[in-house]
Amino acid sequence: MSVQVGIIMGSKSDLHIMKDAADVFKEFGVEFEMTVVSAHRTPERMFDYAKNAAERGLKVIIAGAGGAAHLPGMVASITVLPVIGVPVKSSNSIDGWDSILSILQMPNGIPVATVALNAAKNAGLLAVQILSTADASLAVKMQAYKDELRKKVEESALEL
Amino acid sequence: MSVQVGIIMGSKSDLHIMKDAADVFKEFGVEFEMTVVSAHRTPERMFDYAKNAAERGLKVIIAGAGGAAHLPGMVASITVLPVIGVPVKSSNSIDGWDSILSILQMPNGIPVATVALNAAKNAGLLAVQILSTADASLAVKMQAYKDELRKKVEESALEL
Amino acid sequence: MSVQVGIIMGSKSDLHIMKDAADVFKEFGVEFEMTVVSAHRTPERMFDYAKNAAERGLKVIIAGAGGAAHLPGMVASITVLPVIGVPVKSSNSIDGWDSILSILQMPNGIPVATVALNAAKNAGLLAVQILSTADASLAVKMQAYKDELRKKVEESALEL
Amino acid sequence: MSVQVGIIMGSKSDLHIMKDAADVFKEFGVEFEMTVVSAHRTPERMFDYAKNAAERGLKVIIAGAGGAAHLPGMVASITVLPVIGVPVKSSNSIDGWDSILSILQMPNGIPVATVALNAAKNAGLLAVQILSTADASLAVKMQAYKDELRKKVEESALEL
Amino acid sequence: MSVQVGIIMGSKSDLHIMKDAADVFKEFGVEFEMTVVSAHRTPERMFDYAKNAAERGLKVIIAGAGGAAHLPGMVASITVLPVIGVPVKSSNSIDGWDSILSILQMPNGIPVATVALNAAKNAGLLAVQILSTADASLAVKMQAYKDELRKKVEESALEL
Amino acid sequence: MSVQVGIIMGSKSDLHIMKDAADVFKEFGVEFEMTVVSAHRTPERMFDYAKNAAERGLKVIIAGAGGAAHLPGMVASITVLPVIGVPVKSSNSIDGWDSILSILQMPNGIPVATVALNAAKNAGLLAVQILSTADASLAVKMQAYKDELRKKVEESALEL
Amino acid sequence: MSVQVGIIMGSKSDLHIMKDAADVFKEFGVEFEMTVVSAHRTPERMFDYAKNAAERGLKVIIAGAGGAAHLPGMVASITVLPVIGVPVKSSNSIDGWDSILSILQMPNGIPVATVALNAAKNAGLLAVQILSTADASLAVKMQAYKDELRKKVEESALEL
Amino acid sequence: MSVQVGIIMGSKSDLHIMKDAADVFKEFGVEFEMTVVSAHRTPERMFDYAKNAAERGLKVIIAGAGGAAHLPGMVASITVLPVIGVPVKSSNSIDGWDSILSILQMPNGIPVATVALNAAKNAGLLAVQILSTADASLAVKMQAYKDELRKKVEESALEL
Repeated sequence: MSVQVGIIMGSKSDLHIMKDAADVFKEFGVEFEMTVVSAHRTPERMFDYAKNAAERGLKVIIAGAGGAAHLPGMVASITVLPVIGVPVKSSNSIDGWDSILSILQMPNGIPVATVALNAAKNAGLLAVQILSTADASLAVKMQAYKDELRKKVEESALEL
Repeated sequence: MSVQVGIIMGSKSDLHIMKDAADVFKEFGVEFEMTVVSAHRTPERMFDYAKNAAERGLKVIIAGAGGAAHLPGMVASITVLPVIGVPVKSSNSIDGWDSILSILQMPNGIPVATVALNAAKNAGLLAVQILSTADASLAVKMQAYKDELRKKVEESALEL
Repeated sequence: MSVQVGIIMGSKSDLHIMKDAADVFKEFGVEFEMTVVSAHRTPERMFDYAKNAAERGLKVIIAGAGGAAHLPGMVASITVLPVIGVPVKSSNSIDGWDSILSILQMPNGIPVATVALNAAKNAGLLAVQILSTADASLAVKMQAYKDELRKKVEESALEL
Repeated sequence: MSVQVGIIMGSKSDLHIMKDAADVFKEFGVEFEMTVVSAHRTPERMFDYAKNAAERGLKVIIAGAGGAAHLPGMVASITVLPVIGVPVKSSNSIDGWDSILSILQMPNGIPVATVALNAAKNAGLLAVQILSTADASLAVKMQAYKDELRKKVEESALEL
Repeated sequence: MSVQVGIIMGSKSDLHIMKDAADVFKEFGVEFEMTVVSAHRTPERMFDYAKNAAERGLKVIIAGAGGAAHLPGMVASITVLPVIGVPVKSSNSIDGWDSILSILQMPNGIPVATVALNAAKNAGLLAVQILSTADASLAVKMQAYKDELRKKVEESALEL
Repeated sequence: MSVQVGIIMGSKSDLHIMKDAADVFKEFGVEFEMTVVSAHRTPERMFDYAKNAAERGLKVIIAGAGGAAHLPGMVASITVLPVIGVPVKSSNSIDGWDSILSILQMPNGIPVATVALNAAKNAGLLAVQILSTADASLAVKMQAYKDELRKKVEESALEL
Repeated sequence: MSVQVGIIMGSKSDLHIMKDAADVFKEFGVEFEMTVVSAHRTPERMFDYAKNAAERGLKVIIAGAGGAAHLPGMVASITVLPVIGVPVKSSNSIDGWDSILSILQMPNGIPVATVALNAAKNAGLLAVQILSTADASLAVKMQAYKDELRKKVEESALEL
Repeated sequence: MSVQVGIIMGSKSDLHIMKDAADVFKEFGVEFEMTVVSAHRTPERMFDYAKNAAERGLKVIIAGAGGAAHLPGMVASITVLPVIGVPVKSSNSIDGWDSILSILQMPNGIPVATVALNAAKNAGLLAVQILSTADASLAVKMQAYKDELRKKVEESALEL
């Protein structure tokens, strides 16, 4: 099975956040790739990555970045694939507000599916949900995942 | 072809915003439905809508709401479908911040694909991109849409 | 005497905050229960809890949650009981702003009595005040509590 | 039947907001009084109002104020009654943030039940819920009110 | 010489901040007193303090408080003396924003001279400047203080 | 009697706000002067104004400015007189936040007595209170002013 | 003399703001060009513009954009020329905060010289100052410009 | 070769941030000077520094300051040189917002080239870019610097 999701991040220092998306794909059995692509330091690499993603067979791109986070929006401007943006509260971020607003407030015509601050896990789950729209087995796994969440809460309620 | 996207909103007063998503679906030839579902005033209706959406054949849900906007997140908690949240700057909103944060900052396990404030158009385009992952003809239309955006900018550059 | 107040929280990790409400009830001799109910991970459990609370004899519900905190508002949408919301500055919260706005900015028709960030103690005191409107002995205790607060300040003034 | 709720506001200019609470009480048949009490311009009047409220038979106080809104918190510091605070987006307010934070962020020991910006209607409904804890007929009316909210949404859904 | 400045604070826990004002008065030889007065826990004590301050010979009051900080504004509403407010970033404060806005945004008619977050030192210096308007010797000392500030910067420039 | 208060503003466009301070001085019989001094466009004029203010007999300076509002703080850095800063919500201001923070957040050593956004009236009243510390007749007038405020509220309460 | 400054903007709707920069260049006799380049709708055009700017003889680029404003930062990532960013408070902006943070908070390595919200005039003046570092005649004109600003303030002071 | 860039900071405590600019100049072989100049504690020194900078041969000034950061704007008001402002998140700053807004939001006529919070490195790079407009060898070095940034990202991508 070919790679379905590309996880990219603006800096290797975002890896401790972005790996949560990779863990989701391992859990759900989704093929993915993960690399560093910086909109600001490697604009041509970013351009190429976005330009070729659909042809290479990717279905979804997850892009994480902090501060003036341009990576998700720029990738979304180049590809037709759905792009999920993860605002990262990096060391140079103002409590995450810059990361969030730079990714969320995209102009009409170029959406980025933004998740919560540092929520790479949710980015992974959202990608699975997107893939589920064409893969019923993933939808079944997602339902099982939600059932597991429920059970954990019920157990913690019993412990209280 | 069956309805693929459900557009719901917390109040009829959000219609002037949310209709932009409907317009996208008309342009791309995607079957959709649109109705009012309030998390706070019709919690059971909301529950039923989310519970049955996948079975009814929907692939994506777009939910718009303002203020303490719980509709997108609650629907996402019940369905396995991808949910796109549109923060609406309603009359009771504090410059839109409450709408954005109530939709964006979902806990781990339950993602909502959040778009910009009032950006129902981008919610529609994102839904099309999601459907495109399983429908190559939509991907072609999306590329044409992006080409059109580009041409309009080039024309406005000539006018300047 | 039957249970009068239900304390619920979105996650067991909120317990170190929410136990302050329980301590108030122990001090005032008010019967309470405390459990974990997640709007997002156990929506049906949340629905049931809210639906049955009044019938079970509860008079007030205290709900604490962080981030996109939907628990207090959703419970308030289902029950006729007064609901007190405690915004929790959880690890995934943006300095508490998301927790506050998600709880406070409820639409017309569905109030949530919101207290300060992390102020489960005040939630407990507010519940006591609500119960006091029908129980004069609690009002007497509340006056004594306030007198005690006063005395502690006067003592600390002497120490200075 | 004696007056059960006192509605006070820092300035007569807040009346167009605060009257929404009065309308709720008229609808639910709750006796109320409404007057102007300024924490800053009539501190002694405020002091007396809060000091005598419980003795006069009031069960709940609703206090609305804008800017550095001290009225709800100061009244709460003096009375044992539950105090509901309405942050008013007055002309001298910074988008309502000052009103909200001045009312919401009360220290431990002195709660104020804060509702959304300008949400005097919800303050009225919350007061009814508080009175309902000792008056079953009000609880019945509140359930009917919620049913009515539900029906209106269902009707607007049909219209769409 | 009688006490000229009263330093009050909402809680003894604010002492580590407010003592900076006291240190200024020791340096400038201004008689002062310092005590705990809580607007919320000792409203009558606060009322009495403010009511009698002018008669007791005080010329200026410095009031520090955090969170929903009502002490400076309430004291200002009762006395005719100039009141200097120090927003304290206390443990229950949202990054200081609540403290600042609760003190700064006083309505027309009742000013509070607000200084920076935690800036009790500047509150002390401002009090000295106010007293200097009637005491030329203090103005001379203030000029010397400013000269000293200047010299320290010049020295640190040399060190660089 | 010589001029006691200098009112300065960064731009003539601030006059509609700053004249409120002048009106206070007319009401209280305080001699004042009013002029335009821009920190950014006339730095030398600003320097001279601040340098000579005390020698010319001024007792207090009120400085209003908007946006990156440097006038109050720079004047305070040069003179030993108390400086009252009025944050003006000018057309180039971001909802007033820049004006407030630029004036309020002065470093240790150089206080500015900051009043609420656009509150030139309170700046005037604060200046009167400062002058009152050496002029008992002004304190009497200030008490009368406060009594008048109280009466107006009492009257509006009667009208309600 | 060849074109020295390129003014670009994300949308023709930003022209009413960005023309203020053009007016500065007309006043100072600096050759400029002005066009529409959208990072999101014409990423290749943006890429080409930035890539060729230095070779074409441009010395400075001014880029204005609103919302998730990626144009200035992306151009800066591609060119070695100094890039001045103008945050535009466009219709889809949240009070300008998104525009400011998306432009200002660039990561280490890729600076953007950010000016105030909507301050295209200052962007023009900053570009003139940059060109002045190699063109003494422009420095002379800049001094004259500053003298003119000063005179206007002095005149408005006389009028007061 | 004479000194081309002056780095100034409001306090020696800002040195750990501002030295990043100095490091850039060492790397690019640009002559610079660095000293402490406080707008508030040494206004005359600040005035002299700004007044003489151009005559002394400086081409660019970098000014860093925190809190109510007036240094960059005041220097810009006095000199015709381009001034780069570095908002410093100093201990007395409110999460950096005051530093940013005090530097960024300059009025029309007096630009400050603002960089990201604490981004003295970018201030240094921006100064190099400004000098590059008249020194082709610096432009070559800047291109090499950007190439190096690119290579580092590519290497970290390989490591992943």
